[in-house]
Amino acid sequence: MAVSYVHYVQPLRFSSKPRLFFSDGSRCREDCRKSNCLVFASARKSDISLQSKVEVLLDSVKWDGKGLAVAIAQNVDTGAILMQGFANKDALATTISSRKATFYSRSRSSLWTKGETSKNFINVHDIFLDCDRDSIIYLGKPDGPTCHTGSETCYYTSIFDHLEDQEVEGSRLALTTLYSLESTISQRKAELAAPENGKPSWTKRLLLDDKLLCSKIREEADELCRTLEENEDKSRTASEMADVLYHAIVLLTLKNVKAEEVLEVLRQRFSKSGIEEKRSRKLQN
Amino acid sequence: MAVSYVHYVQPLRFSSKPRLFFSDGSRCREDCRKSNCLVFASARKSDISLQSKVEVLLDSVKWDGKGLAVAIAQNVDTGAILMQGFANKDALATTISSRKATFYSRSRSSLWTKGETSKNFINVHDIFLDCDRDSIIYLGKPDGPTCHTGSETCYYTSIFDHLEDQEVEGSRLALTTLYSLESTISQRKAELAAPENGKPSWTKRLLLDDKLLCSKIREEADELCRTLEENEDKSRTASEMADVLYHAIVLLTLKNVKAEEVLEVLRQRFSKSGIEEKRSRKLQN
Repeated sequence: MAVSYVHYVQPLRFSSKPRLFFSDGSRCREDCRKSNCLVFASARKSDISLQSKVEVLLDSVKWDGKGLAVAIAQNVDTGAILMQGFANKDALATTISSRKATFYSRSRSSLWTKGETSKNFINVHDIFLDCDRDSIIYLGKPDGPTCHTGSETCYYTSIFDHLEDQEVEGSRLALTTLYSLESTISQRKAELAAPENGKPSWTKRLLLDDKLLCSKIREEADELCRTLEENEDKSRTASEMADVLYHAIVLLTLKNVKAEEVLEVLRQRFSKSGIEEKRSRKLQN
Repeated sequence: MAVSYVHYVQPLRFSSKPRLFFSDGSRCREDCRKSNCLVFASARKSDISLQSKVEVLLDSVKWDGKGLAVAIAQNVDTGAILMQGFANKDALATTISSRKATFYSRSRSSLWTKGETSKNFINVHDIFLDCDRDSIIYLGKPDGPTCHTGSETCYYTSIFDHLEDQEVEGSRLALTTLYSLESTISQRKAELAAPENGKPSWTKRLLLDDKLLCSKIREEADELCRTLEENEDKSRTASEMADVLYHAIVLLTLKNVKAEEVLEVLRQRFSKSGIEEKRSRKLQN
């Protein structure tokens, strides 16, 4: 039974649904994913070309003495590093075909697809190799928490928190700037219930006063525009955009909307327009 | 000569400047960084406590048979994975003390600090261990391109690009949603000079018409506010915020301001307010 790689590859960056179809239209059997999907009983010409491309690519990876390379799973929207494992040739081939992040377990000496037990798969949108071709990024969207502990990612132990104060160990994810800010604002919202000593912070005032918050968002958006209209210095633009972002994240927090959800909307929109654009270019040629 | 770890650790997340000071106020000698900074000739009580904490922490890492763990350098603002190497105990100790991402070169059997030749250091703001304590994130800010090829990161080979069309190989960084959108808009701006067939895309129309762009930014900010004021569904909020972001990134592109610069402004602002808040809490107690 022939597996068409064309089905796998073309929509790769535009959908998170796995496409494990045979050329007769049936879906791939589970054991196909467990073995190496690159083995075909028969294949069309375009499949053979794609198959040989995949094989050349797999051979171009600098597998170490044990046939492994580091594989890092990263959230395509937030950039959060979800987990890190190792891949062998079969694991990478399986990830290419199934679009579920798949690793090689060194302790169990077998392939494992993240989520095969928990159902929290990582749906892979793109795969990158580094300049040395011995390190892999699985850029994808997780179905749920990645860590076996239930944490969103496996990286929740800050060495510097630990060195400063043992108590906070294990409590803080490795967040980049935007998500760190979001987490702080969310914390301020949670603190609103507790009695406050002294003047509340600016964030808390905004969280408590919709009118103030909305007037600030409109004001900051206006100021951002004026940096273009009045040809102001680019550092003013960066500063005004930071203001827009901060105040908008306060609003998102009030509405229980995560920045990740906004980025997902953006990704879906511009992926679609990317497909349309590609199609229109093809029609023009 | 005593090295005070207090100098290293306390301001760790708030500044990118290395703090390699001895307790007599002099700076650390270069060879101190090359050897293991945890060895002290003499130390104060607080230093000993911190030193022993660092030692316990280094011993808690699950180093592999060769004494190594995977170390991933990630941009603290954008979340981009810059590079991946390996760290041994000395490399991690050096990174903790010098706050420059330091690795163990398996080929040269020696420590190396990224940037020691190119001066493109990665200034480490925080370090995270994963749940198994055998994988490390150096969360930091790069001084310049990380890859020896001059590329911003080492991950610029998309497997799916390669499988779809060999020509584009090597041309696209592993970008997450926001930066991918930014890159697309930037490309549209670069295309403005070329003659256009047919109707220009919406992005190009915005890039060519400041008045249209600014009216859209003000309109979208207003619509975002109205999702709060009129208690609209949270999916509306996500959608309006996506509109604000998209239009604002078009403005940033026109002003040659990178999203990364905006995030840097945000990080510097809320780190400062974090310090101030910490201080005010200490004063209250």
